[in-house]
Amino acid sequence: MQSYVPHLVTAQTGPLQQLEATLLRQVPDIEAWFRSQWQKHKPPFYSSVDLRNAGFKLAPVDTNLFPGGFNNLNPAFEPLCVQALQTAIQRICPSARGILLIPENHTRNKFYLENVASLVNLIQKAGYRVHVGSLNPEIREPTELVLEISGRKLWLEPVERADDQIFVGDFSPCSILLNNDLSGGIPAILQNLDQDIIPPLDLGWHKRQKSGHFGFYREVAKEFGGLLDLDPWFFDPLFRNCGEINFMKHEGWECLEANVELLLEDIRDKYKQYGITEEPFVIIKSDAGTYGMGVMTAKSVDDVRNMNRKSRTHMSSAKEGREVTGAIIQEGVYTFEKLGDDQATAEPVVYMIDQYVVGGFYRLNSKRGNQENLNAPGMRFEPLAFEEDCITPDPSCGPDERPNRFYAYGVVARLAALAAAREIAASEELAKAAAA
Amino acid sequence: MQSYVPHLVTAQTGPLQQLEATLLRQVPDIEAWFRSQWQKHKPPFYSSVDLRNAGFKLAPVDTNLFPGGFNNLNPAFEPLCVQALQTAIQRICPSARGILLIPENHTRNKFYLENVASLVNLIQKAGYRVHVGSLNPEIREPTELVLEISGRKLWLEPVERADDQIFVGDFSPCSILLNNDLSGGIPAILQNLDQDIIPPLDLGWHKRQKSGHFGFYREVAKEFGGLLDLDPWFFDPLFRNCGEINFMKHEGWECLEANVELLLEDIRDKYKQYGITEEPFVIIKSDAGTYGMGVMTAKSVDDVRNMNRKSRTHMSSAKEGREVTGAIIQEGVYTFEKLGDDQATAEPVVYMIDQYVVGGFYRLNSKRGNQENLNAPGMRFEPLAFEEDCITPDPSCGPDERPNRFYAYGVVARLAALAAAREIAASEELAKAAAA
Repeated sequence: MQSYVPHLVTAQTGPLQQLEATLLRQVPDIEAWFRSQWQKHKPPFYSSVDLRNAGFKLAPVDTNLFPGGFNNLNPAFEPLCVQALQTAIQRICPSARGILLIPENHTRNKFYLENVASLVNLIQKAGYRVHVGSLNPEIREPTELVLEISGRKLWLEPVERADDQIFVGDFSPCSILLNNDLSGGIPAILQNLDQDIIPPLDLGWHKRQKSGHFGFYREVAKEFGGLLDLDPWFFDPLFRNCGEINFMKHEGWECLEANVELLLEDIRDKYKQYGITEEPFVIIKSDAGTYGMGVMTAKSVDDVRNMNRKSRTHMSSAKEGREVTGAIIQEGVYTFEKLGDDQATAEPVVYMIDQYVVGGFYRLNSKRGNQENLNAPGMRFEPLAFEEDCITPDPSCGPDERPNRFYAYGVVARLAALAAAREIAASEELAKAAAA
Repeated sequence: MQSYVPHLVTAQTGPLQQLEATLLRQVPDIEAWFRSQWQKHKPPFYSSVDLRNAGFKLAPVDTNLFPGGFNNLNPAFEPLCVQALQTAIQRICPSARGILLIPENHTRNKFYLENVASLVNLIQKAGYRVHVGSLNPEIREPTELVLEISGRKLWLEPVERADDQIFVGDFSPCSILLNNDLSGGIPAILQNLDQDIIPPLDLGWHKRQKSGHFGFYREVAKEFGGLLDLDPWFFDPLFRNCGEINFMKHEGWECLEANVELLLEDIRDKYKQYGITEEPFVIIKSDAGTYGMGVMTAKSVDDVRNMNRKSRTHMSSAKEGREVTGAIIQEGVYTFEKLGDDQATAEPVVYMIDQYVVGGFYRLNSKRGNQENLNAPGMRFEPLAFEEDCITPDPSCGPDERPNRFYAYGVVARLAALAAAREIAASEELAKAAAA
């Protein structure tokens, strides 16, 4: 067995499912394919992908281009992250010496602040000066925060602008790294800068749409399915989208009901084709935005029809109060992984920097079932550990016999990163055309 | 504190010496300088550097371009090695799917075979097919070895040639990776191939000279000293060389004695300049070749004058019986590191792949003193471990306070790798000119 991605211990312990076994048999072809793809498509600077593993199907359900959980990675992954960051930063700005990191504004989310401190640490270890520039209007002067969880210190400085450059104090960076997903739109201070901004501003959730991403993913999955002679459905969640939905005002409901019905029908066909006896379900979520708000599970069109006022309020309360205007209806993928004493429902989250898988963790939620969104109250994280190496002479753990389940997760996550790479390139093309 | 290289635990526990402290204060400048250098000079595919840390001086004493101790790296470094290998192989042959690894011929050295198995494992995990092609005339057909130490299996195949290509079985690689230092010259089967060979054949010990390498190192050290406003002597071992020495026949002795005298004088001056009260010494070794043979310590020209027949035999018994024809006289660098219950003398060995530091270990020898070559009977290895991360709220271990001694080792080792990069480029230029 050969593996491109770090060997990590996963929650699944049963025999390898067919898809995983197929991927493990074809590692060199898969890796050569990825290499050729990364030559054609510049990988996203960083990304995280939420996966669901139903055994018969392993698919991404969300691809985040502003990943916010670096603090949840096992500290043992740090050197991997550092090495990948060096490659990623050199690719963007070979002469860069310093990076300005712009985080989200929520300075009271103790978990998110840990993520920022972890990113700062990684970028420093990659050999760069790094300052954290805050857009939060409450940060009017350089402010030291002592983080509640780790006790680490985080130094926030207000971002200032002169002409087409932003800076903090006497630090003028050549590159700006966003860890702010711009759900509320592009702040004026970031508009029309002549500095490099990573990821590009147009990838913020004010503009990006999940349906756009999964459209690119569909293409990638089709090509990858062709390579392996596999139905791409085994790693591609079906989806449909509705452009104009207002949950509170009950507008656009016909589109939603029709698409739920059609999508359930498509899933039923696939389940029948492959002899799967589980009950099909769909996930309805905002086409833009993140944070696990506005997500619902439906097993029938009646679930949508009977959505009450409370559910509709929930669906429309996306991050920073943005009104939901588009929805994606995505094939629900069961997660059959369970972890911990409480056997909490678990889904893997895979982290990538540049083209490299740099680690992962499990999102757990003991209050949620295997058909539900786990990014909800009750959520916790479990860092994945490196698998212990077999160093004793035990034939049962020789390099050729020991399957690494995490390999498959790394492959599917990279397919999603590749879709994001194409999405980013297309968005840049659009921006160029608009400017011309 | 910021660090580019993996945080590893070193044997030294005393306060940071001045050089280390200086390096730690200037990390972003040092890293930016390395990045600009790697843009100008293609890093060696892989390398290992033997360092000696005298406290007042930290210097490389040997740079190996065919490193043979990957089995001595801590298994925790594996993901780092895999990621760096991906970068390195992509740099050499972007379309490669398979690698033919050509190891040394000594199929009875159980330690070396573990190194080969470790390399095979790493290349596989980087996503490549790999075969081990043996040049050993005893390997006439595909042969499975079961390794004595780890119980791992190693499959050796005889290298065959058709026209300008070599292959094993039905495997024709686009790239050939040498882990054979060609001490005995370039075998006919490897001459004039149209496949990529890494490292270039001319870097074998049949042709490479330590004095050549340390000439390039001197330049690199001077530039780096200029960057930091430091006397390069703090990380550059002085040396002189003699072109024609035959220890058995006692030929070229005047050159040797004169250079030992001159070099000791130079070291004495430096010790005086910096108030160092240790006794200067020099190391005399073959200018070509490796394997710790033919190395002697001299504190005065009398040590050379009085060299007896036995010592001269030892000096001339380089690897594969090659007659020693050139010698390098190198400033001796004390090693003040000690490790283990027996407080064995220790020197760090740093491993690099491409531009990345991927790990290291200590070479220990309790039978040898701090002025002696440790690569001798009694030698053992101690893998370096990653430093435990500070994850509890202890102000004394915050990211800014905890110095990482290993950082300095990674810097000096990379200076040596950079010298090797320039050495490789120069050797390629020479080869091109010769072919024109």
